[in-house]
Order: sequence, then structure tokens, then C-alpha cells
Amino acid sequence: MAIDRHDAEKLATELYAALARGDRERIGALLHPEFQGRTTEGLPFDLGGTYGGPDRMWHEFWRQVGKNFVARAEPAEFAMLDDGRLLVSGRYTGTARRGGALDAEFVHVLSFTDGRISGLVQLTDSARWRQALDGAGRELSAIEYAVEDNVASIRLNRPDARNAINQAVGDDLYEVAQRCATDTELRAVLITGNGPAFTVGGDIAVFADTDPAALSATLRRMTTPYHEAIRVLTELSVPVVAAVHGSVAGGGLGLLHCADVALAAEGTKFAAGFTTLGLSGDGGNSWFLPRLVGLRRAQQFYFGRRVLDAAEALEWGLVTEVVPSGQLRDRAREVALSLASGPTRAYGEIRKLLRDSFTTTLPEQLAKETEALGRVAAGADPATAVRAFMDKSEPTFEGR
Amino acid sequence: MAIDRHDAEKLATELYAALARGDRERIGALLHPEFQGRTTEGLPFDLGGTYGGPDRMWHEFWRQVGKNFVARAEPAEFAMLDDGRLLVSGRYTGTARRGGALDAEFVHVLSFTDGRISGLVQLTDSARWRQALDGAGRELSAIEYAVEDNVASIRLNRPDARNAINQAVGDDLYEVAQRCATDTELRAVLITGNGPAFTVGGDIAVFADTDPAALSATLRRMTTPYHEAIRVLTELSVPVVAAVHGSVAGGGLGLLHCADVALAAEGTKFAAGFTTLGLSGDGGNSWFLPRLVGLRRAQQFYFGRRVLDAAEALEWGLVTEVVPSGQLRDRAREVALSLASGPTRAYGEIRKLLRDSFTTTLPEQLAKETEALGRVAAGADPATAVRAFMDKSEPTFEGR
Amino acid sequence: MAIDRHDAEKLATELYAALARGDRERIGALLHPEFQGRTTEGLPFDLGGTYGGPDRMWHEFWRQVGKNFVARAEPAEFAMLDDGRLLVSGRYTGTARRGGALDAEFVHVLSFTDGRISGLVQLTDSARWRQALDGAGRELSAIEYAVEDNVASIRLNRPDARNAINQAVGDDLYEVAQRCATDTELRAVLITGNGPAFTVGGDIAVFADTDPAALSATLRRMTTPYHEAIRVLTELSVPVVAAVHGSVAGGGLGLLHCADVALAAEGTKFAAGFTTLGLSGDGGNSWFLPRLVGLRRAQQFYFGRRVLDAAEALEWGLVTEVVPSGQLRDRAREVALSLASGPTRAYGEIRKLLRDSFTTTLPEQLAKETEALGRVAAGADPATAVRAFMDKSEPTFEGR
Repeated sequence: MAIDRHDAEKLATELYAALARGDRERIGALLHPEFQGRTTEGLPFDLGGTYGGPDRMWHEFWRQVGKNFVARAEPAEFAMLDDGRLLVSGRYTGTARRGGALDAEFVHVLSFTDGRISGLVQLTDSARWRQALDGAGRELSAIEYAVEDNVASIRLNRPDARNAINQAVGDDLYEVAQRCATDTELRAVLITGNGPAFTVGGDIAVFADTDPAALSATLRRMTTPYHEAIRVLTELSVPVVAAVHGSVAGGGLGLLHCADVALAAEGTKFAAGFTTLGLSGDGGNSWFLPRLVGLRRAQQFYFGRRVLDAAEALEWGLVTEVVPSGQLRDRAREVALSLASGPTRAYGEIRKLLRDSFTTTLPEQLAKETEALGRVAAGADPATAVRAFMDKSEPTFEGR
Repeated sequence: MAIDRHDAEKLATELYAALARGDRERIGALLHPEFQGRTTEGLPFDLGGTYGGPDRMWHEFWRQVGKNFVARAEPAEFAMLDDGRLLVSGRYTGTARRGGALDAEFVHVLSFTDGRISGLVQLTDSARWRQALDGAGRELSAIEYAVEDNVASIRLNRPDARNAINQAVGDDLYEVAQRCATDTELRAVLITGNGPAFTVGGDIAVFADTDPAALSATLRRMTTPYHEAIRVLTELSVPVVAAVHGSVAGGGLGLLHCADVALAAEGTKFAAGFTTLGLSGDGGNSWFLPRLVGLRRAQQFYFGRRVLDAAEALEWGLVTEVVPSGQLRDRAREVALSLASGPTRAYGEIRKLLRDSFTTTLPEQLAKETEALGRVAAGADPATAVRAFMDKSEPTFEGR
Repeated sequence: MAIDRHDAEKLATELYAALARGDRERIGALLHPEFQGRTTEGLPFDLGGTYGGPDRMWHEFWRQVGKNFVARAEPAEFAMLDDGRLLVSGRYTGTARRGGALDAEFVHVLSFTDGRISGLVQLTDSARWRQALDGAGRELSAIEYAVEDNVASIRLNRPDARNAINQAVGDDLYEVAQRCATDTELRAVLITGNGPAFTVGGDIAVFADTDPAALSATLRRMTTPYHEAIRVLTELSVPVVAAVHGSVAGGGLGLLHCADVALAAEGTKFAAGFTTLGLSGDGGNSWFLPRLVGLRRAQQFYFGRRVLDAAEALEWGLVTEVVPSGQLRDRAREVALSLASGPTRAYGEIRKLLRDSFTTTLPEQLAKETEALGRVAAGADPATAVRAFMDKSEPTFEGR
């Protein structure tokens, strides 16, 4: 008897969740004893092939993948085929254990027998898996990246170009954003810039060197990894601090927007600048600005070519705090370390709640708050904090 | 000939609307002469059973329910079955006429013949109906509730615990919120607190007494009725005034957020406090704060552990008005009475429009405004107000 | 072999896009050689009838429509019929070349053969087409409209009634909004009012003259074209400037809200006024106010009957700039001309991005920004601007 769509999606969803947890027992329960897997030929480590039975699929495929990659299959869309199979499309994201970021599309076709999953045909962009391995020793050319005391430091490093965003900055940012997303030891991220300005936005010298007929394609190519970086940084489950100085302009504002704490040195100038160049803008400004400063003020960045100083940026809600110029680096480090010694799980849930807030109804959001609270309270930190509160002492959060 | 989904849903929607209005004539027109009803066995007053024909269903079931409960069936989801029947799931909400709040899930299976409803099989959580009756003499232990001059007064009453929210506060709040929602005479609600503080938020002493392994479950249990209370208060069709003093913290901020007019005494302190306890927060803060104070300031409550005084709360848009400390009670009563003598229907529509605003597009919202205006203008108050305006006199709004 | 839904929608979407571009070649490729068209009998110019073959459909129908109307078919919904035909419903919008606004519903039934469109049965509200023609010499009675230097000027013109909005104002506004939407030479719109006040909102004298039993219908009739005007003005692809003075009240605030630059003369008063009349309000206030001034302040317009002066309106974010009273007209003209000589395409995309921002997630909005950037950068203005930037000269934007 054919499975219905609801049951098929439920089984699929449970399979992806169980794979993400590495829950072999649950996977075994979901798969039919006569399960057949077929995976993409081009995968590295000879992972492409056919696997008969749940055990072989587990030992010879999924476990081998897990030894070489920290990756997660994220289904985005389900479609029921006429013959009762389920088509799942989505992305694998993560990193190679000895390498760089993995971000590869997949299509899975699942078959079902007697209420269990009896077949999986996988097609994925296997070149991306190989590229992730190549990323092992990949040199960052436009960004400095380091992790210390559980804090990742992302530092824009094109000081002579006032950290203008070119293809290398976009690619590097995406790379380090992925590293942050997959580093389970991280408890905070700090974004700064070397040189006289945090960033002046898109690199106009690159645009000037581009044949006008190719400008559209060049901008798309640069914006794509940069936007992915903004997305990944916004979706991190650890707090993000941005500390800016000099100038923050154009798409570069996105790196400020995606932070939970946005520090600015006195004297910093903030501008969109898009319309001066005849452009419509990027960096998530059209999403963040109305939420940060309201619609009327957001319009002024675009239609009025408004330039804000640091005090105005604070008053408008673009930044959290203004710091005397010479103290920016120390204050940024202090805030990042303080957040890194906080209740990391709670921070992660709060980031998600605030991000989701804008497109949910109140009843949905109340339900999400209850769920998040239940997850966080199942960890160690809240009990520690309650004890400390009763003892009037300072809690030591372990971030779990 | 089988009915199609659209027609089935339309008939069902009309039936629920006619039941809500008690419109027997319309119900008679919607039901097939050979209608058969079957209701849940466990219902009180021997209401469970089989009813042959529209008349028996009306006289022996629906009218009997109406004599004992002020309840409304709110369908949430429709699903078409293969055999042409319609599955409706939703909730009954309201109160027992001599009792407490009713909130019970239901599933209805509707059959159709010749374009009319020919069958209704009802399954509901009948124990909840019995519990509602038990609520008859239910003592509120943590809240004082009274109705005077069409104004419901909800007063938090754990003064020694600075109105910390424990299970009793959550349960009582849900109970009184339901009473407000079903009291058709109400024209305003006023929320205040006895003792030195409006509320310090969740009761940390309760958390400290809870086995860490049980903390997650305890928090869920407390948050569930509290969130339902916030939801019901936000969805009331009469204006809500909150008047706060001393401290408003944590989830307790939700009672301030859900008001249309939020008054604060000078000297009041506002804080989230969640992350100090390693928690992610509740009370609808993650929905309301970005809408009230913007994203950057919302983050400061969580990541910066920011404490606001009353003047800052006013400037940020957390409260509507700051009142000298000794005058809070009088001012709150004055505002509530003024709203209670206003155009109640218009207020109800405005509450709904502002609540819906955030997740609609402009064209949708313009259509909703036109619909709301049409409904309100069909009542008595606008004509009264227009006459008064032309006479340069004060209108007397009847609230209809 | 039957076409699947996806392919059918794709073909239909391409057809509407090709019709909008007047791309005869593409249309020829989409239609089957044995294409049959049947159009609504009541259409003017004997356009109703049957057309055999793509060529006749093009020459005798679509080209004739295009000679007499600047109109666009905008599909809103697609539904697949059992027999493999596609039902498309939507609206024709535009203007008669010698006439007024066109806004007529349509239903198209498309047939498919061998992957091409082989049939189109059109049913449209043909009376609306005839009415659009009647609008030819239609006198605007309550609005002055003129186009100069690529700037459309919309001037409310009931000075003795302080530009109170009656049926004529609503109808005229919709008419001129449609003219703006279909005038491809426009590069900016300026909205102002003659007399002592920009507008006092809905015309209370009309309400007073209305039988109370008819008030609801009267309000709906007035609000419908007015809301359509607000929608069309908000969705224009050129910048909109509003310049207000005296009073801006009630639904009239919508004309201020929909602007990208909102100028106010010193001394202007802003109020909702709805609840004074027992009404719930219109003009898009319930959508715009929370986005412009935040939820708490939006409530004050409704529940607190708050009246703002110009300085408060600026501080709250209701207006962009306050101008000394005698300078409003000059300043407004200056801003409108400046925007009209700007990068028109970029402005159009920005308007759309900011409008869409509120109901999208960040990942969606990032993708929209990339798409918009790609479209804008394919035009002439960005390359011009980049060259000017490198030369340190002022660019001359052509608006394309």
C-alpha cells in the first residue's frame, strides 16, 4: 500500500534528525531490513556506490562520511512523486575535518516499504566535497582569522584599500563564517578591521576595471559569497560582536548589522552610498535597516544619502555603544570574552528567537520561547546560575 | 456527487459562525434534513450521545451546551478525507456559566449530502469540560480579580514575593484572562500589582527548590498557562491598561507589553534578567521587544543585561507614560475608565489590526482596514460620534 | 500527453512577461501554430471574438489593444484543471491611451499542445474597459495633476474643505496614481495640497449627511479607491515625495506614509482622529505606523488621541525633514527634481526591497538584494556613476 505524503515526510524528517545526532539505533529503526542505498559516484574516498542493507549503509557510508566531514544534510523541500517515492532537495553544510567549508546541494529520492524507508538514491554536487578537502591548507588572503579563549577573531585585512570588499574578501568571509559555524568549541565571535577604516563597502576600483557589460555578473559573483557569509554569521549559535572605526559603508554595514553587540569608535562615519553609484544595495541593509532604525530613517540612507556620525548611529539604534577611539580594541575584546564566558546555549536560542521574531505571529513566538526555554533548562548552566543567585555568588557558565 | 474541498470548508465555516451567533435559522439551512450528530460520551450533563435530525441536535445538544457554557468552537485546521468527509480540528474556548475557564481540543468529522451538512461526529477532551465546571468555586490564590464599571481589574497579589511568577500566578492569570475574554459586558481591563513591585518575573526560589533534572519540565509547566494568558490578553477585543511600579522583570514584562496603554510610576526599573540565570527568556519578550524598542535595543536586554529606569523606558517606547509615584493608581483608573467609555468596537478592531500588522503585506492590511471600518460603521457609535462632532458636543459611546 | 502544472505555469508566466514587453518573437515561439484565441464579447473596438492562429491573435487583438490601452495583464493565481488546461485569474491594469485608468479582472483558460500554448479563452470585466475610455476627457474635480521635468505633481484641491477626503478625492487619487504607474517617462512624484491644510482626513460633513444605516457602505465605497491609490503609489517604481502643511489627519496620513521623503512645514499638526469618531481607521495607518514609529507610539495615535507637532513628528520618524513654513514648496520641488535626476532604476528596486522587507526572512531578502543589484547593474547608470566617481566628477543619471 502506498505511503501518504505526511507519513513519508515524517519518516524523512526523522531520518535527517537521527543522522544529525548520529543516532544509529534510531536510524536502524527507520530503515527497512531490505534497504538499498545508492550514492553519488564522484564523491571522494570512494564513497560513491551501492550499499545493500542498513548495516552496510551505516558502516560503509554514513560512518565514513562522518570520519572525514562534520556535515549535516539539511532538507529544504519535499515533493511526493507519483509512484510513492519522496524527492527531497536540500544542502549539505559543514566542513571537511582536514579542510575547509562544505556547502553542496543534494537531491535524495526515498522509497518506502511497510512504513519504513527502503531506498535512498543520493545525488550531490560531489565536486564541492572534493573542494572542501582542498580547503585544508587554503590561505586566507584578505582576512585574518584566529581562535583564542573560545573567541574567533575575524579581522578584515586590506588596510591599504580601507578594507574595500572585493571577491577575495567575500570568499574569505564565507570561508571563516563556515569555520565559525562548525567549530563546536567557539563561544563568541569578534569582527574587526585593520587599517584606517572598518570597511568602505564594495571595492569601486574593481567596478571601474570591469567592462560595463560585465558589471552585473561581477557584482552577482562578489555578492553571492558575501551574502552567504552574512547569513551564516547571523545564524551562528554563539554571540557576535562587531567593533568598527573610521568608516562603515555600503554592503559593509551588514557585518555590523549581524552582530548582537555593535561597538563603534568615536569619529566613525556610517553611510550606505549605494545610490551615489547608481546601485540598489546589498549586505542585507534592506532587511536590517528598517528593523534597526525604522522605515523613515532607513529611507534616508538610500534616498537622502545620509551620513551618520557615531553619536547619531547610537541614537538611531545602529550601534549598541560608542567607545573612545583608543579604547575600541580593548573594549571589544572585553565584551567578547565576557559573552564567551556566558550561558552559550541561552545566547544561541536568543539569537534564533530574535531572528525569527519578525516573521512570526505572537502565538507562534510564545510557543518557540517555551520550546527554547525547555531546551536551555535541560542543560547545566541554568541550575548553576540559580544556585549562584541564591548564594549571591558569581556563576561559572560552562556554555552547556 | 462528492462535494469539493472549497465548498465543504465554506459550509463548515458558516456552521461555526452560525453557532457562534446562536443563529438557529442559518444552522437549520446548513444542515441536511437527515442530519445525524454524534457527540463525545464523556461530556457532562449527559450531553454525549446520538442526535437524529437538525431539531434534536439543536434542542437537545447545542442549546443545552449554551445553557451551561459560554463557549465557542474555533476551527484551526481543515483536512479533506478521501471519502468526501471533512475533518476539522480546533478548540472550544470560553467558560462554564457557573464555573471557570474552558479550553478543550476537538475534532469534528463532517459529512455532506446534496450540498448540506448531513453528519457531525464530535470528539472533544471531555474532561476539560468537567474541569471547567469544577472551576465554579475555584479560589484565585495569587491574583485579585474584580469587575466594576465595565472595567476588569487584574491585580497580582503575592506582595511578599514581589509578585514573582510561580505556578499559581500562571494558572490564575490564565483563568482571569479567560474570564475577560468571555465577559461580554467588559469594556476595558486594568492590570496592576500589589506590594513593592509589579513583578520580578519568574520565581527563582521555585527554581532553586527544583531538582536540576526537573527544571526543564517545571519551566515548561509554568510557562504554558502564563503564555496562554499573554496570548488571550493580547487578543482581547477590549483595551488593556497596565500600570507598573517598583520592578518589572523577566517574563513579567509580557504583561506590560500586551497593554495598549502602559503606565509606569517614576522610579520603576525594567530588566530582562534571563541571561543572568542562564535562560533564554519568555513572556513574549522576543516578539514584543523588537517591535517596541527596535532590534538593537532588544538585544541589550538579553546580551547587555541592561536595566532601564522609567524615563529611559518612556524614551525607548517600552511604556506610554510615566506618572509620579503617588498618582499611579488614580491615573491608571482614570485611563481605564476613559477607555471603557469609548468606542469599544473600534478599539477591538484596532487591537486586531495592530496585532496583525506585523505579518501582513500592505495590500492585505489595507483590505483588513476596509473590512474593519465597514464592521465598525455598521454599529451605533460612529453615527453618534459624527452627530456629536457636528454639534460640537461630547458623544456618549455605548460600545457597540 | 498532458502537460504538468509546473510547465503549464512556466509557459503562462512567460507569455504574460512577453506580452508586457511586447515581444512578438517570444510570443510567436510560445504559441502553437494552431493556436485559437477567444476574447470577451463586450470589449470595445470590436475586440471581442475568435482569432485563429498566432498571427491573427497578434495583429487583430493584442496589437489593437496596445494601440488603445497601456495595459498589463497581471496573473494572480493559477489553477490546473482536470483536463490539463490552466486557469489563470488576475487583473488588467493600466490606462486607456485617450482616457482614464483601467483596472479590470480577468480569467484566462489556457490550453496546451506539444509543450506550447494552443488556446486562450479570455473573460474580462469588459465594462471596465469601456469606462476607462470614458475617462478620456474625465475632469479631475478634486485633484490637480501635472507632469513637468519628469516629475508628476499631485495636488489635493479642495481648499475650502481643508482637502477633506470625499468620494471625488478618492476616485481622483486612484485615477492619478494609475496615470503615474503607467507613465514610463516619470522619474519622481510630488504630493502636496492647496489651501490651509494638507488634509484633515475623511470628510465628516459627508458622514453627517449619510443615513446612519448607510454609513458602513459609504465608508467602504470611499475607502476602496483611496486604498487602491495608496497601494499603487506605494508600489510605484519612482521615488515619491510628500510635502505637508497645516494638518495631516486620519486616513490622509497614508499619503505621507507612502512617500520616500516626507517633508513637513513647521507648525504642521499630525493626528489620527479615528477613535474620536468611533472608527477603527484607514489609509494604511495600521500597517505604516508600527513600522515608522514603533508599536507603543502607534497605539498613542489610536488609544491616546495623540496630536503631534512637526518637531515631534520628526523625532518619532513620521517625517524625514521639517522645513520653515514659507520654504516648503521650494524645498519640495528641489527634492523631487533631485530625485528625478537620480538613478531611477536603483530607486525603484530600493522601494521594492524596503516594501518587501517586513514580511521576508533575511536569507530571502539577501537573495532579493542580489537579484535587484544584478538587474540595476545591467543598466547604464551604475557604469556612468563609477566612471564619475573615479574622475571625481558628478554623474548624469539617465534613469536606466
